[in-house]
Amino acid sequence: MYNNLYNNLVVIGGNASGLAAASQARRINPDLNITVLESGKYISYSTCGLPYFISGYVKRAEDLLVYPKDFFEQKRNIKILMGHIVVGMDPSKKELLISVGQAQENKIIEYDKLIISSGGTNIIPDIPGIDSSNVFQFRNVSDAENLKDYIDSNNPKKAVVIGGGAIGMLLAEAFNQIGIKTTVVERKERIYDEFEYEISTILARKAEMDGVDILTKTSITSINANSGQNTATIEDASGKKDLECDLVMLATGISANTGFLTDTSIELGINGAIKVDNKLQSSHMNIYASGDCATIKNIVTGKQDYIPTANNAVKTGRIAGENAAGGNKVFNGSVGTVVDKVLDLEIASTGIGSKEAVSLGYDAIKLIDGFSSHAGSVPGAKKIAIIIIVDTTSRRLLGAQMIGGEGVGKRIDVFATAITNEMTVDDIYMLDLSYAPAISTVWDPVNKICGKAVLALDKHNR
Amino acid sequence: MYNNLYNNLVVIGGNASGLAAASQARRINPDLNITVLESGKYISYSTCGLPYFISGYVKRAEDLLVYPKDFFEQKRNIKILMGHIVVGMDPSKKELLISVGQAQENKIIEYDKLIISSGGTNIIPDIPGIDSSNVFQFRNVSDAENLKDYIDSNNPKKAVVIGGGAIGMLLAEAFNQIGIKTTVVERKERIYDEFEYEISTILARKAEMDGVDILTKTSITSINANSGQNTATIEDASGKKDLECDLVMLATGISANTGFLTDTSIELGINGAIKVDNKLQSSHMNIYASGDCATIKNIVTGKQDYIPTANNAVKTGRIAGENAAGGNKVFNGSVGTVVDKVLDLEIASTGIGSKEAVSLGYDAIKLIDGFSSHAGSVPGAKKIAIIIIVDTTSRRLLGAQMIGGEGVGKRIDVFATAITNEMTVDDIYMLDLSYAPAISTVWDPVNKICGKAVLALDKHNR
Repeated sequence: MYNNLYNNLVVIGGNASGLAAASQARRINPDLNITVLESGKYISYSTCGLPYFISGYVKRAEDLLVYPKDFFEQKRNIKILMGHIVVGMDPSKKELLISVGQAQENKIIEYDKLIISSGGTNIIPDIPGIDSSNVFQFRNVSDAENLKDYIDSNNPKKAVVIGGGAIGMLLAEAFNQIGIKTTVVERKERIYDEFEYEISTILARKAEMDGVDILTKTSITSINANSGQNTATIEDASGKKDLECDLVMLATGISANTGFLTDTSIELGINGAIKVDNKLQSSHMNIYASGDCATIKNIVTGKQDYIPTANNAVKTGRIAGENAAGGNKVFNGSVGTVVDKVLDLEIASTGIGSKEAVSLGYDAIKLIDGFSSHAGSVPGAKKIAIIIIVDTTSRRLLGAQMIGGEGVGKRIDVFATAITNEMTVDDIYMLDLSYAPAISTVWDPVNKICGKAVLALDKHNR
Repeated sequence: MYNNLYNNLVVIGGNASGLAAASQARRINPDLNITVLESGKYISYSTCGLPYFISGYVKRAEDLLVYPKDFFEQKRNIKILMGHIVVGMDPSKKELLISVGQAQENKIIEYDKLIISSGGTNIIPDIPGIDSSNVFQFRNVSDAENLKDYIDSNNPKKAVVIGGGAIGMLLAEAFNQIGIKTTVVERKERIYDEFEYEISTILARKAEMDGVDILTKTSITSINANSGQNTATIEDASGKKDLECDLVMLATGISANTGFLTDTSIELGINGAIKVDNKLQSSHMNIYASGDCATIKNIVTGKQDYIPTANNAVKTGRIAGENAAGGNKVFNGSVGTVVDKVLDLEIASTGIGSKEAVSLGYDAIKLIDGFSSHAGSVPGAKKIAIIIIVDTTSRRLLGAQMIGGEGVGKRIDVFATAITNEMTVDDIYMLDLSYAPAISTVWDPVNKICGKAVLALDKHNR
């Protein structure tokens, strides 16, 4: 079955990045035929909001849907095909091999230009019992619905979350809120391992205060539900032991969802992500890629990196869509800005960390200090901890991380903007940042930590 | 009486800017003799927090004091002389003429280097009855104490606030909160006149919803308390009328507190402010100036301007102190960032407004739109209105203003940082800003409004 259309743009993936791409292509070129292929049964949903559906803070899964299918079809003249899984492709013929729906009917779809926005896919550990019915992954609305159904029907009392990154900790928080006693099992030395030690330690302490158990330097070796037991076996330096659990959550990270490209000559990079240039073009002229399935330029390192955030997904989608439709926009890259609100703390990061700075050959120093989110004279101020990483040679800010009760989320953006502009700590120290007693301190914490860096640099370089 | 000290640094003014200057001078030079002359009976207080003392949100005036006198004298070896009013000076002799305390005893103090951080002074309208006992000004802790004493003793029911700028509106809010029916009388067309029309209109509506009356294009012609009446006479296009009031508040703006320089050759600029260069040096080699009594370089216009904010006061103080003590630091200037929290709204501005852009000869466009402070899926999001001013030629952002229920204060700082770095709206549109559903939307409002500007510019320049 062939689908022959002239000037045919096909987008693989119907979530944030793919739909940003399709929408921008439509804005640029009203005459293009645009088709979006979505493997699942939902499009345009808030991935980052899914944990709120588990905690019950968001009541209905539909509340996480951003735009309905009709919106794209009717307002933007974009055709959306649901349940269309791309299982292979032939770039030389500009053909996609599709498996449709539960019947898995095969179909070939042709394109003139292709945008791959197929997203990320969970990394599944290869351990016995991983296919048990009480083991869940958490990536999309269907995953969230399955998990919620299981919780509502089986009333689990104990959960093990494998992986102490953002998704793992957000799920631990959600479980904790609905009365499921939760243990987070983290293979590495600490949770939130991409953050500096001091920041992730503050979060770990808060988790334990809230009743979430955290086991680090611990791996999971088997899940024993298939054998009738409600346990998972874990292993640390002291040996193996069984942990009671009615529910096992996989939160062991994602890689690019690019398995269907294995037999093609499309170049892949870090984490299986499609290598793209600064116009979001892949190694093939007519194929663009955006979002969690593609590499992205790291502004600090100058290298292609893997930074699967929603903020990057929509931006790269927009540029890929524009260029696939005939535009010529350059994407400057990402500084890796992330923020989470977890366990009543805001935790945020931008730029690179101290370990990465060292590995890149910088003679970097790291500053840490604690601040008040606003003036002490106005009740309700919260503590904020800030770490910055500074290159002693250029005096440029390389990275910043923060954790605190309020005022973290958008303050990290000041650092992100400063890093994007290659600012020195001297200049950030003197940035004209807003002050009112209910909002900040006279010297904003962003100014202050950079002032501390200026003193340290003057000493270091003396 | 002479006070002869070698290597003698004298600082006029014991609030934010003067103390920042004195403290930085001490850090740079441990051997200097440093003396701070304060005209009043308090040093180091939160000027911006004073309205909270009137509303009772801050219970005691002492809670607004940031550091005690002892801290500076003992920890920093800085001599503080209270009740020392500078009434004149002779720069050729490096002498200050001082009037001390209630006895107004005269005294001469010599300096080798001088930093003038004498702050701002209220502009007092010249109208009959202005000296009545129910007329108050509001600039320092003593003013706030006088006002609070009057309110506590006299239980006023109706107040007239003259001037609808930040101080006027913050006082109107405070009066409203303690049950004093308040009318704000504003001479100009609208309150918050330095803001764009659309932003100040949102604030005016909120004020009226909250029960604060606002009379614009109205001036006050007399205060009639001396004649035994509890009225103030106001005048608008329709004529004069009397307004009942037990209390009249002056909030008609400030100018530089530099009257004592009148007979010197120290050059003054805009609003009576001491003209300084980019090292905070005045027209006299050994005299520096900082804070509300000095001009400041406006980064956007490149000109010396008058921007009396606390954030500027501490920064210019720090640089003036460093340079007066032998340093050689350059101050890059201010983008005029301000934020207030008034009537439960955050209102903020940075850069220049549309009127100023026109007067500077820019071919500028103005964009306005409304946004959600965070993702709609997470309850509690508030509305934000944003205006940006963009130069159509360079595509640079020139100014930004925001008003909303949350997430304004530190978001304006992203714009401030972008303007400082002369960013185009194209680049701000693609800035990697943080996203989590409880903190922002996937495209942050800062990105979005600039995306709108990009479209508008492409159209405008076609």
